[in-house]
Amino acid sequence: MKRILLTYTLSVLFLLPAFAGGKEGTSLLKYVNPFIGTTNFGTTNPGAICPNGMMSVVPFNVMGSEDNKYDKDARWWSTPYEYHNCFFTGYSHVNLSGVGCPELGSLLLMPTTGDLSVDYKEYGSRYKDEQASPGYYSNFLTRYNVKTEVTATSRTGVSRFTFPAGQSHVLLNLGEGLTNETGAFLRQVSDTEFEGMKVLGTFCYNPQAVFPIYFVMRVNKQPSASGYWKKQRPMTGVEAEWDLDNGRYKLYTRYHKEIAGDDIGAFLTFDTEEGEQIEVQMGVSFVSMENARLNLDKEQGGKNFNQVLAEARTRWEDDLSRILVEGGTEEQKTVFYTALYHTLIHPNILQDVNGQYPAMESNEILTTQGERYTVFSLWDTYRNVHQLLTLVYPERQLQMVRSMLDMYREHGWLPKWELYGRETLTMEGDPSIPVIVDTWLKGLRDFDIDLAYEAMYKSATLPGAKNLLRPDNDDYLSLGYVPLCEQYDNSVSHALEYYIADYSLSLLADALGKKEDARLFYNRSLGYKHYYSKEFGTFRPILPDGQFYSPFNPRQGENFEPNPGFHEGCAWNYTFYVPHDVKGLARLMGGQKLFIEKLQRVFDDGLYDPANEPDIAYAHLFSYFKGEEWRTQKEIQRLLQKYFKNAPDGIPGNDDTGTMSTWAIFNMMGFYPDCPGAPYYTLSTPVFDRVVIRLDAKTWGRDRLVIETERPSSESLYIRQMELGGKKLSRYRISHEELVKGGTLKFILR
Amino acid sequence: MKRILLTYTLSVLFLLPAFAGGKEGTSLLKYVNPFIGTTNFGTTNPGAICPNGMMSVVPFNVMGSEDNKYDKDARWWSTPYEYHNCFFTGYSHVNLSGVGCPELGSLLLMPTTGDLSVDYKEYGSRYKDEQASPGYYSNFLTRYNVKTEVTATSRTGVSRFTFPAGQSHVLLNLGEGLTNETGAFLRQVSDTEFEGMKVLGTFCYNPQAVFPIYFVMRVNKQPSASGYWKKQRPMTGVEAEWDLDNGRYKLYTRYHKEIAGDDIGAFLTFDTEEGEQIEVQMGVSFVSMENARLNLDKEQGGKNFNQVLAEARTRWEDDLSRILVEGGTEEQKTVFYTALYHTLIHPNILQDVNGQYPAMESNEILTTQGERYTVFSLWDTYRNVHQLLTLVYPERQLQMVRSMLDMYREHGWLPKWELYGRETLTMEGDPSIPVIVDTWLKGLRDFDIDLAYEAMYKSATLPGAKNLLRPDNDDYLSLGYVPLCEQYDNSVSHALEYYIADYSLSLLADALGKKEDARLFYNRSLGYKHYYSKEFGTFRPILPDGQFYSPFNPRQGENFEPNPGFHEGCAWNYTFYVPHDVKGLARLMGGQKLFIEKLQRVFDDGLYDPANEPDIAYAHLFSYFKGEEWRTQKEIQRLLQKYFKNAPDGIPGNDDTGTMSTWAIFNMMGFYPDCPGAPYYTLSTPVFDRVVIRLDAKTWGRDRLVIETERPSSESLYIRQMELGGKKLSRYRISHEELVKGGTLKFILR
Repeated sequence: MKRILLTYTLSVLFLLPAFAGGKEGTSLLKYVNPFIGTTNFGTTNPGAICPNGMMSVVPFNVMGSEDNKYDKDARWWSTPYEYHNCFFTGYSHVNLSGVGCPELGSLLLMPTTGDLSVDYKEYGSRYKDEQASPGYYSNFLTRYNVKTEVTATSRTGVSRFTFPAGQSHVLLNLGEGLTNETGAFLRQVSDTEFEGMKVLGTFCYNPQAVFPIYFVMRVNKQPSASGYWKKQRPMTGVEAEWDLDNGRYKLYTRYHKEIAGDDIGAFLTFDTEEGEQIEVQMGVSFVSMENARLNLDKEQGGKNFNQVLAEARTRWEDDLSRILVEGGTEEQKTVFYTALYHTLIHPNILQDVNGQYPAMESNEILTTQGERYTVFSLWDTYRNVHQLLTLVYPERQLQMVRSMLDMYREHGWLPKWELYGRETLTMEGDPSIPVIVDTWLKGLRDFDIDLAYEAMYKSATLPGAKNLLRPDNDDYLSLGYVPLCEQYDNSVSHALEYYIADYSLSLLADALGKKEDARLFYNRSLGYKHYYSKEFGTFRPILPDGQFYSPFNPRQGENFEPNPGFHEGCAWNYTFYVPHDVKGLARLMGGQKLFIEKLQRVFDDGLYDPANEPDIAYAHLFSYFKGEEWRTQKEIQRLLQKYFKNAPDGIPGNDDTGTMSTWAIFNMMGFYPDCPGAPYYTLSTPVFDRVVIRLDAKTWGRDRLVIETERPSSESLYIRQMELGGKKLSRYRISHEELVKGGTLKFILR
Repeated sequence: MKRILLTYTLSVLFLLPAFAGGKEGTSLLKYVNPFIGTTNFGTTNPGAICPNGMMSVVPFNVMGSEDNKYDKDARWWSTPYEYHNCFFTGYSHVNLSGVGCPELGSLLLMPTTGDLSVDYKEYGSRYKDEQASPGYYSNFLTRYNVKTEVTATSRTGVSRFTFPAGQSHVLLNLGEGLTNETGAFLRQVSDTEFEGMKVLGTFCYNPQAVFPIYFVMRVNKQPSASGYWKKQRPMTGVEAEWDLDNGRYKLYTRYHKEIAGDDIGAFLTFDTEEGEQIEVQMGVSFVSMENARLNLDKEQGGKNFNQVLAEARTRWEDDLSRILVEGGTEEQKTVFYTALYHTLIHPNILQDVNGQYPAMESNEILTTQGERYTVFSLWDTYRNVHQLLTLVYPERQLQMVRSMLDMYREHGWLPKWELYGRETLTMEGDPSIPVIVDTWLKGLRDFDIDLAYEAMYKSATLPGAKNLLRPDNDDYLSLGYVPLCEQYDNSVSHALEYYIADYSLSLLADALGKKEDARLFYNRSLGYKHYYSKEFGTFRPILPDGQFYSPFNPRQGENFEPNPGFHEGCAWNYTFYVPHDVKGLARLMGGQKLFIEKLQRVFDDGLYDPANEPDIAYAHLFSYFKGEEWRTQKEIQRLLQKYFKNAPDGIPGNDDTGTMSTWAIFNMMGFYPDCPGAPYYTLSTPVFDRVVIRLDAKTWGRDRLVIETERPSSESLYIRQMELGGKKLSRYRISHEELVKGGTLKFILR
């Protein structure tokens, strides 16, 4: 087996404190397999990172060799690592996990030996003995006989290379990376330190969503030589004859001042003894090189690799142990804790150790008192990630909402898909609204709700031309729906998002006593009915003249091919996405029986896409109807078993910054927030016998929520009986308040 | 006529003080035609510069259009401007004048109007109404109806663009330039200010001679829009489909932080009224962006274009008026003062207003009390430029020698071809030695002669492998000559340079009382005799086995084709280059008669190359032999008339940072320092009736040197009689001391 999970071996070797006296007597880290999701387009990676950390150090294996199965430049590609690839070209610093567009994944750090080569197509290496656990990754480069290990703090990384005897090199490649932006700047500060800047951006091919990353790199040994390289532009004629570097990588051996270019890098050469270890530290910042240095000094000053690793492991142990599970198989525990691990990667901190961060869509540098979060993939995460954070990590969720409000203060808009201070406008809708409403309604209220309401009201009501978040608001407001104006404008998807956002906003308006607003937004949220086609029994795009779009094929859009009216899916993936009016949708479809039949057919006929967001709460909809809850329990278990595995393909598609993982987490615990913005959960069969969620007592009034399951046999699938707080419970949807106040939720299966 | 010389018109317009009360009652600036040397590979340019200034602002017209006669990328090309080209793509900031290799000529500033284009192949313009005078250049861009004007201070430039009504743009292109290095960094500091860095270097295709230039650019009007551009790298496959900027210039309209890349630039867009003028200031530094800003603040703070121009003109007036001529034609005066203008461009200052400069071949920043000079094209300038500076601008020459010694302190070597702190090792020999020796022997002695001697002794005696300046010193020391080891190693040219350097050093050693050293170096200087081939009557390469190189053609090497043993020339261009032992060479050739005949044949048979250095003092050698002086007088006048004209092709070839121009200056005044290092001049017929050189009295003990010529007719060519200090002079070679002490040199022609 090529990859092995890192378990106790390391802890014994390093005498890590986290393992010595863990409260539960054993580490949860062994249940995290960072290789889950690293193929099948899960786009997670096995790199080293701390919870919600700015820094991740990830093995980069998606370029430079035809032996790789996938190449970043040969196709749409959005992750620095693919499990089935084999050609390692270094560690990328700061990466995205579980996204669908290429971005970041730069500052590539590579150890080599022998003659110096700075062309990644030449210097890349095959590898073996991959090991990964939270905060740690290691492999062995077979070409160079170099063992590589990486770990991280919140804002810095450190790599440890164990070299053979001879001439060894450390390369920093700024010319390549996952990002489609190019251009970097480098300066050798001393024999052992470099600082620089690289331009990143164009996420999801948005050409203006550009931002800089600053870094400081340090090595702990004096190099025997160092310098830069830069790929030279091709010359012609007599110039080409004279310039021997024409079109090639030129080595700058005597020049050590600033260098800049599209494809530049730095090399350090060392005389190493057999087994000699060299550590390379990398600090980053999105504010300045000075801050990158400050981050590095503060977080790694005086620490070696082992100390940094020990702290990273402790932090993961602390975070993962907020939920303790008993029962279930080792596989299920691994799926569960790995999902929790993946969910705790994004959003991540943006501010430096001094609190500075780049203001949203601005040149300004501001200072935050708490955390400033970034990487808000909200079209995904508004569905469940923020609900999980609210319950289990409320201090983080609150700070994320504050960050979103600060973005509004700085930029005039709440985020849609925010990335390191840029609004990439990826996907659609107004997803900040359900996040903020859900947080508030559940009781996390230490933020400026008036400002939040102002921000949400603005995007909900501002006419379209000036409305950054709802560009088609004019039609939406006047018609109650968005007509299809261009073949692939995703009009139905847009509107469905506006409906759920407006429903959320109506809940908050109601809670704030704004009864008229509440009515207005609630009424708007029912506009989905315009799209229902009796002929096809699905939603269907409407043309500007009011007629349905023809010819129409409700299955078009499967497998991500473009589809009029629908974004990344077919009509079936969207038709049941009215979580705020399930009963109303059922009436539209001819009543409960026909609704249930049709919904079941979606699953039976393979019309359900487990890999994307619009339909991921379909299975829970059965439970809105008395007597049909078993279908929820059955489908959820089937989906969990089929798509969530302790294997590299153990996530059905893009993890979407933890959204898929969070789907598994909730459902494995037995409850799921299927209507974003509404503080309710649908209950279903847990996979564990006992789940203890260690709650923040100050927030929730109690320090734990316990979910117990009595399971007559391991095959028991259906719920026979439930108790909440010791009292019998006969509903399959309960409020957040009921759940938390109940304290103990008990399932008795049959 | 396309170009017109700028004369009184401007002075009246601007009420320039320099013109109001000049001592001689009229400005000398009208005798400078900056278009001289701008074709025929003179490689001078008509741009704006101050005497020995770091900054020059030069119209750049050597790229982007097939309508141009010469294109920088289509051939070997070393100047930003060609008289016969027609496609203007902006003003380059900081340029070399009269060199033979491409370098600098970047920071291209271009005004345009209408739709924004950032591709120089598109945005370039034809032009008319060129005007140029010291410190000023102007043209009119016919495509845009924009008048452009530029002027400069020592370290900064300012451009004034007179726009039509509408949308106007100012573009700063950092992707192109004369330099073959690429890569730049840019940051928008405010709406009206940018700062940045560009990598320069690889002069004469030396890949490691790389250095940075820093700049700050300011505009005096708030733009309506601004941003960057960067050429995107080509993508393939699905990436290319999604990235609309693939392979093109992408505009960055929302991003205003740092940008870096191979081909980047900045644009500023203005709403302009008819005739509205916008001024763009550019400050540079070779130390830092902070210093570039300091230079700009100090030299242009509170000044507008007209004030900067007035100061530049005053400085030129002051410098040119150190030599006042009477008689001669307007053409001759123009040739003379333009030559003086060209000679006062390099070496130029390197230090910033705070005295900081980049140390030689180092990352260190040092501070100088006086001037730190750079751009030492010493293989050229050691022959006459420094001799002219010593006599007329002794304060500058002294500071140049101090700069050379500081280079030795910093780098361990005196300069050979120093360029902005890098030793480019262009051409051959040990040319600092004659410069320093000449300066010392003439009496400029306020520098550390012990250190100078140590430095010169080092390069003269250190064995070859470690000897940066004399890489073939091993053979030279053991054999007395350099054998041809590789086909084009220029071995004879190398050795001839060592001989003259060693002769110079022997003179100094003797003056310092180091008699043994003096004998050693003098004896070495006679090693040239090894190369004399009786068979061909020329020098001829010697093979490592001691045999002459065969087959041998003494005319090979004409027209710059490669030639074994000789650099940029044929054997004839080198055979008489033993200025320190002319009599000895004559003996070798069979005596005076045969020597004179052969030397005359060189001129008569077209074996003399007026465009390169080795033979430029050939004509003076006749005067070493009594009765043959008339040949010197005749040939010099012929060469002056034929090759030095008030026309764009008025310099016979590369001006070589003023060396060709200085040849004309000395010879037009009637004396020439034909043996570098030896403080002597050969006298010949002046073209002026009266020359007054205003001397530095503290240095020379008198405040003027007067050269008077009695000329029976305008055709008078030969010298009948001479007087020095009122006494009859019968020698045609006199020492520097004799000349200066004499005070008045009088020629009576026949």
